[in-house]
Amino acid sequence: MNFLNEIAGRYPGALSLAAGAPYEGFYDVEDVHRCLRRFCEHLRADRGYSEEQVRRTLLQYGRTKGIVHDLIARHLSVDEGMDADPESIVVTVGFQEGLFLTLRTLRRDARDVLLAVTPAYVGATGAARLLDMPVHPVAGGPGGVDTDDLVRHIRAARGAGLRPRACYLVPDFANPSGVRIPLDLRHELLDIARREDILLLEDNPYGLFPLKGERLPTLKALDTARSVVYLGSLSKTVFPGTRVGYVMADQLVADGAGGSVRLADHLARVKSMITVNTSPLAQAVVGGRLLEHGCSLERANAREAVFYRRGLERLSDGLARRFPAPCPVTWNAPDGGFFVVVSVPFEVTDALLERSAREHRVLWTPLHPFYDSPGPMRQLRLSCSALPPDGIDEALDRFAVFVRARAAEDGIRW
Amino acid sequence: MNFLNEIAGRYPGALSLAAGAPYEGFYDVEDVHRCLRRFCEHLRADRGYSEEQVRRTLLQYGRTKGIVHDLIARHLSVDEGMDADPESIVVTVGFQEGLFLTLRTLRRDARDVLLAVTPAYVGATGAARLLDMPVHPVAGGPGGVDTDDLVRHIRAARGAGLRPRACYLVPDFANPSGVRIPLDLRHELLDIARREDILLLEDNPYGLFPLKGERLPTLKALDTARSVVYLGSLSKTVFPGTRVGYVMADQLVADGAGGSVRLADHLARVKSMITVNTSPLAQAVVGGRLLEHGCSLERANAREAVFYRRGLERLSDGLARRFPAPCPVTWNAPDGGFFVVVSVPFEVTDALLERSAREHRVLWTPLHPFYDSPGPMRQLRLSCSALPPDGIDEALDRFAVFVRARAAEDGIRW
Repeated sequence: MNFLNEIAGRYPGALSLAAGAPYEGFYDVEDVHRCLRRFCEHLRADRGYSEEQVRRTLLQYGRTKGIVHDLIARHLSVDEGMDADPESIVVTVGFQEGLFLTLRTLRRDARDVLLAVTPAYVGATGAARLLDMPVHPVAGGPGGVDTDDLVRHIRAARGAGLRPRACYLVPDFANPSGVRIPLDLRHELLDIARREDILLLEDNPYGLFPLKGERLPTLKALDTARSVVYLGSLSKTVFPGTRVGYVMADQLVADGAGGSVRLADHLARVKSMITVNTSPLAQAVVGGRLLEHGCSLERANAREAVFYRRGLERLSDGLARRFPAPCPVTWNAPDGGFFVVVSVPFEVTDALLERSAREHRVLWTPLHPFYDSPGPMRQLRLSCSALPPDGIDEALDRFAVFVRARAAEDGIRW
Repeated sequence: MNFLNEIAGRYPGALSLAAGAPYEGFYDVEDVHRCLRRFCEHLRADRGYSEEQVRRTLLQYGRTKGIVHDLIARHLSVDEGMDADPESIVVTVGFQEGLFLTLRTLRRDARDVLLAVTPAYVGATGAARLLDMPVHPVAGGPGGVDTDDLVRHIRAARGAGLRPRACYLVPDFANPSGVRIPLDLRHELLDIARREDILLLEDNPYGLFPLKGERLPTLKALDTARSVVYLGSLSKTVFPGTRVGYVMADQLVADGAGGSVRLADHLARVKSMITVNTSPLAQAVVGGRLLEHGCSLERANAREAVFYRRGLERLSDGLARRFPAPCPVTWNAPDGGFFVVVSVPFEVTDALLERSAREHRVLWTPLHPFYDSPGPMRQLRLSCSALPPDGIDEALDRFAVFVRARAAEDGIRW
């Protein structure tokens, strides 16, 4: 990610099909002021807070598990049909801290390992690495997860004296693959998790952005055995600048004194030693945004959902027009989200990205960082999120010229 | 800390001489709006940003090392006489994340240990524990640090095959001891650090609040050999609710490829896997506050400094009036900050705190959590920061009744 940012900084004229960041065109700093005021009104009107309590809530040290946990629980109920106990929610400094807390809590010693559906988001594997927690890659494939491979890996790890604790995955429009796991496989995953006694760490930043039709229920909404820890990001649905995310962890775990305690409370204890609490000011902005839309982020993002849908269509259609079959350039057809994976007839390296930026002024993301043991890869990721439709067309024009030029160097023409 | 918060929650009528949190009486939510606008103006006027760039800076993902690093560097120059390279500063989610990043970076394996001047802030020892990094306690004593004991511990650790990497300390008005390390000992500490090849982790949340006279130069301001990593908190000088702090780490370390890189850049790499970046919205509030006062937090906190000075005087004078010598209750006389340590003729336990809250409606902090291996302790910490002067008097009245009642149970009267 640092390399991508560095390249983007060096070639400011390059159009980005690389960035997975949300579109900025709808942003307005005045929204921050308005959302803050809305949340303060809520504290006064709905919670009966005095001015002193309002000030304290926003400006003083605060509750480790956060101050918008109840509004997030309502969002999960309204948008995802989840029956979330607010006390099982820890508001975190983005998804990233949520995952870090979860992994730190699950890792007791060197025998604890993480499984991750591959290709996997680099923030997830990076957090595990920082905690000296080995990551065992589980095959993804066209269905989003190869459940036989998952079981094989769980049993192989146990056979080697290790403890496979959890499997990290993005069921909805994964980063980078764009793939959505179908409903029957979701049920099968939950069966496996229960039977094999592992947790599923469900990361869901893109679920609100399907290409068409219905959204699928999250793993957590289908979870009857507390097998799923749900990791929420608000970066794509509120603002990345709040750095607010959350973990919903309703598992009961031993408290070390013969009783049991929520996993969320364990996470909070760890959090108190890493960031103390998530900025209540930033939480207040998120709270205000939720309140403005009856706690529905689906409603709050109606305009964004249309924008991303059109972008993804433009990306797919644009590829089809520029690389008509038969052609050695192919790509997948995600049902939503931001990403498309493109296969090309040459090896995709960081150096090639730099050349694409320099000579063709277009950025994309090599796929190898999303694999733990990178061999030579002939794949890359395109994203539709950062550019408006015309920008996508212009970027694809440049991308097509780049791909043809690079392929021609190997004598490949079509 | 959790136990303290729980007790405070259960006895809302209790007056708190326990909380080390800053005084809330000067807070105003409108300050947040004003500081945000001020920072946006700065981006437009001083950095020449377009509206699009302003929006992006506040609301989008951002620079891992932060967006107010330059303003913090100016603050360190204006208020502390430090010549800080902005690129050596990482803006963090409070002091706590800054320390966590530093310790994670210093810890390579089980042989790396931390030294900490004792009694030590629980957030520091807690972070080390979370990283499985043993903490070797160095005696504090009336001068704030026993340098002979420090050298002894460094050599003993090395003799045992361990790597003492750094010593954590609060040179100015430490938590909980209130003690300030005098200038000659500061120079001696820097000599030891250079000679023995360890880092000093200087935590400075209270330095702007001396009781009288001049402030002393920070260790970092005296550091000519890059022996000091400076950990900044803004919770006491801006708002805790921003959760913004920073690390200044100008050391050069090997980059693994034969070159060298700033320690700050190592910290940033770790940060990218824990919190990605510190909320730019929260940073903008801090930035606005700094800009309002020419980047001087000393000027920004002129009113607060007077308030805390009066509070500390009221606390010391109030103790003297209520426990005139000769008396088995004694206390130290810090030169500033928030805290006084009181010695009492009975053992101070968590249960006793609960009783004090229930029967006498006054809160204080037992000292045993600030020691790594708690034996029975006859000391507690009083803080002047949360209450206005009249509240301190009322709380001390209750405290004196409590202490006399408890001592009388052991037949101790004076």
